[in-house]
Amino acid sequence: MAYFPGLEGVVVKETEICHIDLENSKIYYRGYDLEELAERSTFEETAYLLLYGKLPTRGGLEQFKAVLRGNRAPPQHVTAVLQHLPKSAEPIDVLRTGVSAMAHGEDLRDRSPEAELARGVRIMAAMPYIVAAWHRIRTGQQPLSPDADSHAEYFLKALRGSDVSPLEARAMDVMLIIYAEHSMNNSAFTAVTVASTLSDMYAAVTAAIASLKGPLHGGANVDAALMIEEIGDEGNVEKWVDAALAAGRRIPGFGHRLYKRGPDPRLRVLRRLAKELAYAKGDTKYYAIAQRLEEYVTAKLAAKGIYPNTDLYAAVIFKYLGLPVDINLPTFAISRVAGWVAHVVEYRRKNRLIRPTEKYTGPIGLKYVPIEER
Amino acid sequence: MAYFPGLEGVVVKETEICHIDLENSKIYYRGYDLEELAERSTFEETAYLLLYGKLPTRGGLEQFKAVLRGNRAPPQHVTAVLQHLPKSAEPIDVLRTGVSAMAHGEDLRDRSPEAELARGVRIMAAMPYIVAAWHRIRTGQQPLSPDADSHAEYFLKALRGSDVSPLEARAMDVMLIIYAEHSMNNSAFTAVTVASTLSDMYAAVTAAIASLKGPLHGGANVDAALMIEEIGDEGNVEKWVDAALAAGRRIPGFGHRLYKRGPDPRLRVLRRLAKELAYAKGDTKYYAIAQRLEEYVTAKLAAKGIYPNTDLYAAVIFKYLGLPVDINLPTFAISRVAGWVAHVVEYRRKNRLIRPTEKYTGPIGLKYVPIEER
Repeated sequence: MAYFPGLEGVVVKETEICHIDLENSKIYYRGYDLEELAERSTFEETAYLLLYGKLPTRGGLEQFKAVLRGNRAPPQHVTAVLQHLPKSAEPIDVLRTGVSAMAHGEDLRDRSPEAELARGVRIMAAMPYIVAAWHRIRTGQQPLSPDADSHAEYFLKALRGSDVSPLEARAMDVMLIIYAEHSMNNSAFTAVTVASTLSDMYAAVTAAIASLKGPLHGGANVDAALMIEEIGDEGNVEKWVDAALAAGRRIPGFGHRLYKRGPDPRLRVLRRLAKELAYAKGDTKYYAIAQRLEEYVTAKLAAKGIYPNTDLYAAVIFKYLGLPVDINLPTFAISRVAGWVAHVVEYRRKNRLIRPTEKYTGPIGLKYVPIEER
Repeated sequence: MAYFPGLEGVVVKETEICHIDLENSKIYYRGYDLEELAERSTFEETAYLLLYGKLPTRGGLEQFKAVLRGNRAPPQHVTAVLQHLPKSAEPIDVLRTGVSAMAHGEDLRDRSPEAELARGVRIMAAMPYIVAAWHRIRTGQQPLSPDADSHAEYFLKALRGSDVSPLEARAMDVMLIIYAEHSMNNSAFTAVTVASTLSDMYAAVTAAIASLKGPLHGGANVDAALMIEEIGDEGNVEKWVDAALAAGRRIPGFGHRLYKRGPDPRLRVLRRLAKELAYAKGDTKYYAIAQRLEEYVTAKLAAKGIYPNTDLYAAVIFKYLGLPVDINLPTFAISRVAGWVAHVVEYRRKNRLIRPTEKYTGPIGLKYVPIEER
């Protein structure tokens, strides 16, 4: 039996959801170029594509958006749960508890792909509310469920309680498209692993949120934001990076297991978007820091296969959108749930229990000694 | 790249925790024969062994038990959360929400093995309370946190609110020992997968509970209990099995990916324990059903590599202990958390992000068509 640390290179499933073309620096969702989707589609359209395998007709899209709108507020007990949590709880952890709690009260016996997909859409619909409600509760405000046409606009309105400009709504929309899916990453794999036991969609998504939190996965987007705040000014970049590298620290926003021959294709979209926001807001400070980081760290580390990743500019975009740093991470989840649900539904159509093996290297046949004699 | 459906035979980690010797029908925890541990040790001793790698001294055991006792009641907000959930919520799902909620309010930045192990012990300590409290809340009673020396006795007392006989406490203790660990099963693997992102122990255990629920994993122990209730009498076994097989149904309590050449070694212990309880309680009905099922189904299916598994007699034992059928599953979690925590701590000492790959079989380069033209 072969030993695969981290399962690198082990093909665990066949898929029609996402293709990453490293040669040509392209990502495809269901065959469509992600850069084109980011430019021309909406998150709702992209989520529909990931979940149902094709771009929607006008009618299909309206119906899908109506289901999302109808399920934005989760079952009432979820809000009650949020209201009883310690205010210092981390938003990504509260989202995990909130999605787990959404399951309660529902009859979960039907685990058909149709039933699971419907659950997945309801979870997707409610996640912006949960994240925004928690941020408002912890800051002493009432949760909101405002009217809004798009998922992106709804989330920003529910979070900030203020109007959202078309550019802001569009920037959040692009972020949601960009983060929605990325092949067999750890959280999607966690969702599939849980679902392979025939556990339900709430269980699978709860587990995926647990995984996304890790600093080697989604958690890195918080680290990138903290770094940019800490650097504070473009002129400090070189000193900060030199000190971090001298201390043997990893630079947030750089490095990815897949992208060792060049930057993540999503970076082009996010760099453009960050720049557009910076100029529209008349505040280019954070964009300039990220840009300088990109140049300086790439010059230092590209030879080692370390390139900027999406977190670098995502941190800047979220900053311009007014997100508290620790809301970046659950925002990633609000987007990525589309991919998680798509993978679970796809895997379950040809399900096989995931159970790897391990190599035992310890002793065997030790003699039990009564506690008096130890 | 090789395709491994279900990851069967893929070695994902080296371990010193558990060895399953299929040739000799033996299971070893840290080198000790599980049958001997079930006969001579206690759950606390076994959990210590799994977590710390060696059997405790008297002083070490007392200290460990004191930590468990001191953490039986989770942070107060967890009970408040339980009190706000719909009464129809499934106990395993509520345990998932409860463990997830335990994380809130704690500073989780220190992810050292020591900090994570301490968290794991606190989760282990609190799980019996959460399961018992939920059962009492849903049946209109107040949660209890009774005095009790052992984990097993505490759980039964907190659940039933009545005295527990020494035989009952010992039977639950043996169940907790038997279920505590079983190599790289789906839930342990889920915990490790989540932890490999450097997410925290609450996240890892929450995800493992999500996995355990699945009917192809822990959920099967509920199915076995329901089957035994449905059969109702030893005399109905043959008819019930014939009908189930004719309908192409899987028989709960039978079959396991690992045990295709003979029954699970744990079966011997559980069969003896079920018999002892049956005679002590003067009620052999359920034991007799399980025994007849074992004989009849083995005669029919052993040639196909299908043997009885632990769920068959576990269902009988839990029945004699007065557990509601749907509490069987979280009881499994109360035990298995020892293995989950041990695996997470072991893996994190030599951590590598788990990220398998997948084979893309869909189209590439589809042309985006505006919605008006679809």
